[in-house]
Amino acid sequence: MIDAAALAELYKSQLLDDVIPFWLKNSADDEYGGYFTCLDQRGRVYDTDKFVWLQARQVWCFSMLYNQVAQRQEWLDFALSGARFLMANGRDAAGNWYFALNQAGIPLTQPYNIFSDCFAAMAFGQLNKATGDAAHAEIAKQTFHQILQRSSNPKGAYNKQYPDTRSLQNFALPMILCNLVLEIEHLLDPGVVEETVRSCVDTIMDRFYQSESAVILENVTPDGRFSDSFDGRLVNPGHGLEAMWFVMDLAKRSGNAELARKATDIAIQLVEYGWDKKHGGIFYFLDVKGKPLQQLEWDQKLWWVHIEAMIAFAKGYLHTGDQRCASWFSKLHGYTWSHFPDAQYGEWYGYLNRRGEVLLPSKGGKWKGCFHVPRGLFQLWKTMEAISTRQKKLMVQDN
Amino acid sequence: MIDAAALAELYKSQLLDDVIPFWLKNSADDEYGGYFTCLDQRGRVYDTDKFVWLQARQVWCFSMLYNQVAQRQEWLDFALSGARFLMANGRDAAGNWYFALNQAGIPLTQPYNIFSDCFAAMAFGQLNKATGDAAHAEIAKQTFHQILQRSSNPKGAYNKQYPDTRSLQNFALPMILCNLVLEIEHLLDPGVVEETVRSCVDTIMDRFYQSESAVILENVTPDGRFSDSFDGRLVNPGHGLEAMWFVMDLAKRSGNAELARKATDIAIQLVEYGWDKKHGGIFYFLDVKGKPLQQLEWDQKLWWVHIEAMIAFAKGYLHTGDQRCASWFSKLHGYTWSHFPDAQYGEWYGYLNRRGEVLLPSKGGKWKGCFHVPRGLFQLWKTMEAISTRQKKLMVQDN
Repeated sequence: MIDAAALAELYKSQLLDDVIPFWLKNSADDEYGGYFTCLDQRGRVYDTDKFVWLQARQVWCFSMLYNQVAQRQEWLDFALSGARFLMANGRDAAGNWYFALNQAGIPLTQPYNIFSDCFAAMAFGQLNKATGDAAHAEIAKQTFHQILQRSSNPKGAYNKQYPDTRSLQNFALPMILCNLVLEIEHLLDPGVVEETVRSCVDTIMDRFYQSESAVILENVTPDGRFSDSFDGRLVNPGHGLEAMWFVMDLAKRSGNAELARKATDIAIQLVEYGWDKKHGGIFYFLDVKGKPLQQLEWDQKLWWVHIEAMIAFAKGYLHTGDQRCASWFSKLHGYTWSHFPDAQYGEWYGYLNRRGEVLLPSKGGKWKGCFHVPRGLFQLWKTMEAISTRQKKLMVQDN
Repeated sequence: MIDAAALAELYKSQLLDDVIPFWLKNSADDEYGGYFTCLDQRGRVYDTDKFVWLQARQVWCFSMLYNQVAQRQEWLDFALSGARFLMANGRDAAGNWYFALNQAGIPLTQPYNIFSDCFAAMAFGQLNKATGDAAHAEIAKQTFHQILQRSSNPKGAYNKQYPDTRSLQNFALPMILCNLVLEIEHLLDPGVVEETVRSCVDTIMDRFYQSESAVILENVTPDGRFSDSFDGRLVNPGHGLEAMWFVMDLAKRSGNAELARKATDIAIQLVEYGWDKKHGGIFYFLDVKGKPLQQLEWDQKLWWVHIEAMIAFAKGYLHTGDQRCASWFSKLHGYTWSHFPDAQYGEWYGYLNRRGEVLLPSKGGKWKGCFHVPRGLFQLWKTMEAISTRQKKLMVQDN
């Protein structure tokens, strides 16, 4: 049985006594505002570039802690430092978010990546809940509407695909929109929220999830069919697992037990498919037909994949009581806890090789910042609390 | 001592009895022309997309064999099949080469990558030597001049860098131009050839080679200085080693023994820097300041890195007689021969993990085709022949 009460304490402590202090201590740029995310094993800054996506995720993280854990001024001030930096430097004249800035905030990379915009909208939506500042709300809303406008061709002029030869839609945007609309629900027309949720859930569960192969594909044809191509065969099990807990949250919100059940079943299929039976852990990428991949990093074990998978099975267990969730959760906790956290210097390693050895000792970089670990620990803490409450009720009933 | 005569036979046999038959047997697309390069361990086609860069490299390879090894009609016909496919499908209206086509030749990816053009120019230049066909010469010349025009901003409209914040020049283009001008020398004005050679050699040896750190950087500032950024710190030892044998060829052509000596010394510095002292082999990427890299594949061992390094030390030994070249050559031959060739199904594996275990069993894909292995085996065969001739002369003198 899962000792949910003890695990809730463990995750809470790891979040509040290790991970959050690590970022507070090491990532502040006192000169220009915003955050350093390129931190080495000890938390020392090894590069000063600022990636808008990661700046926004960190604003979101500290705003969320302020809103959901405790109204600590230090957390809000830290979120505001990043928000001011982003407001001053993050957007082009049309309001699109750059991908990367230098330390001073001068653009390095054009706004080709719509996920910069997605995380900016999330950040300012969550921050607005803390500040009530209309300027923060306005940025979140404006960015959200631009995302919807760009969604049919997110890369715009930077799209290198030749038109119409092989049109594929990618999983990431509908998946993130599922999560984003709930984040900024307080700022949107309820009809827009419901329509976006309905459309995204259908897209994920009926198009990207393929019942024959029992996986979620990263790219499908516009009408939701399999494309036998490098992109079409690609599976990212962690990505699908992350999406399944987003769908479970939506199912809980609408009281749809059948949807929670379906998301749980798919999560179990995904982890059974993606688990490395030889060395443990979940592969980063697989080819659904077992063909050689383009991604040379396919067999690596990434931090976010494992914490997102833990959340999926914690929530799956909470919603369905399915013992397979408890079993997978325990297995994933064991692997994750023995491989990713760095007991010496704090925070987590991000990248392990197939054998589970540390591939890069850094705690942050261009793609890893202050996001998946704290969000995941918060989600796990709260989910374990809910499971623990239920376990106590059941014990009372048994007596 | 290197047994150059025996090695010449080994490389010749591996080229003519293994590698070339593998591509002749497995890669022909009899339906649409051109080549399949996505071949699994046994040589079976696992994907039918056609990457212009790899199509061109294969045209070059069979044309080169026809010109330099034997005038076999089968080789010329095979080269012509790829050339016809490329002539019919490879370019946009402005004459720029697409990056990828589907099996039938319909564009998949826009012409964002100037290396498609570089290898197309090489292919049609080498083919023209075999056919004397003016149409082939015209394509090579036109493409070469478009490369020079595009060289200041190779990605054109697809360039995502924000202008002027951090302008860096990349090593790959001057390096390839060094090789390309010799390939199509018969089609160019001698002044253009000499100016391009002089400019490229200066750029490589005086800008990208950094004497303080004793490495070749992948990206430097426009005036040849170090940029302390992810791109600026990047070292690809195999890339530098490949460039050093291009420079040795240019040194030989102009009788510049000092340049050959300098290229040899740099090659030795690069391999000493890039060699994995724990597991053997040369790392794919390193950070010159020892900082964490963005490239998750940094510690992998790639086929082309190792065969290009072998060529550099074979030529370095031929030109200088430096025993350190002989020693590194033997070490590299030992590692390469025991790890990359597949004795069961032919050709070479492309991608090993840090420990030297096969990471992807395929013989070709999006980035590996019929190029580095056959070109390398040819270069090694001929260089070992030259070393063997010298060894025999010395033995005669000794008697």
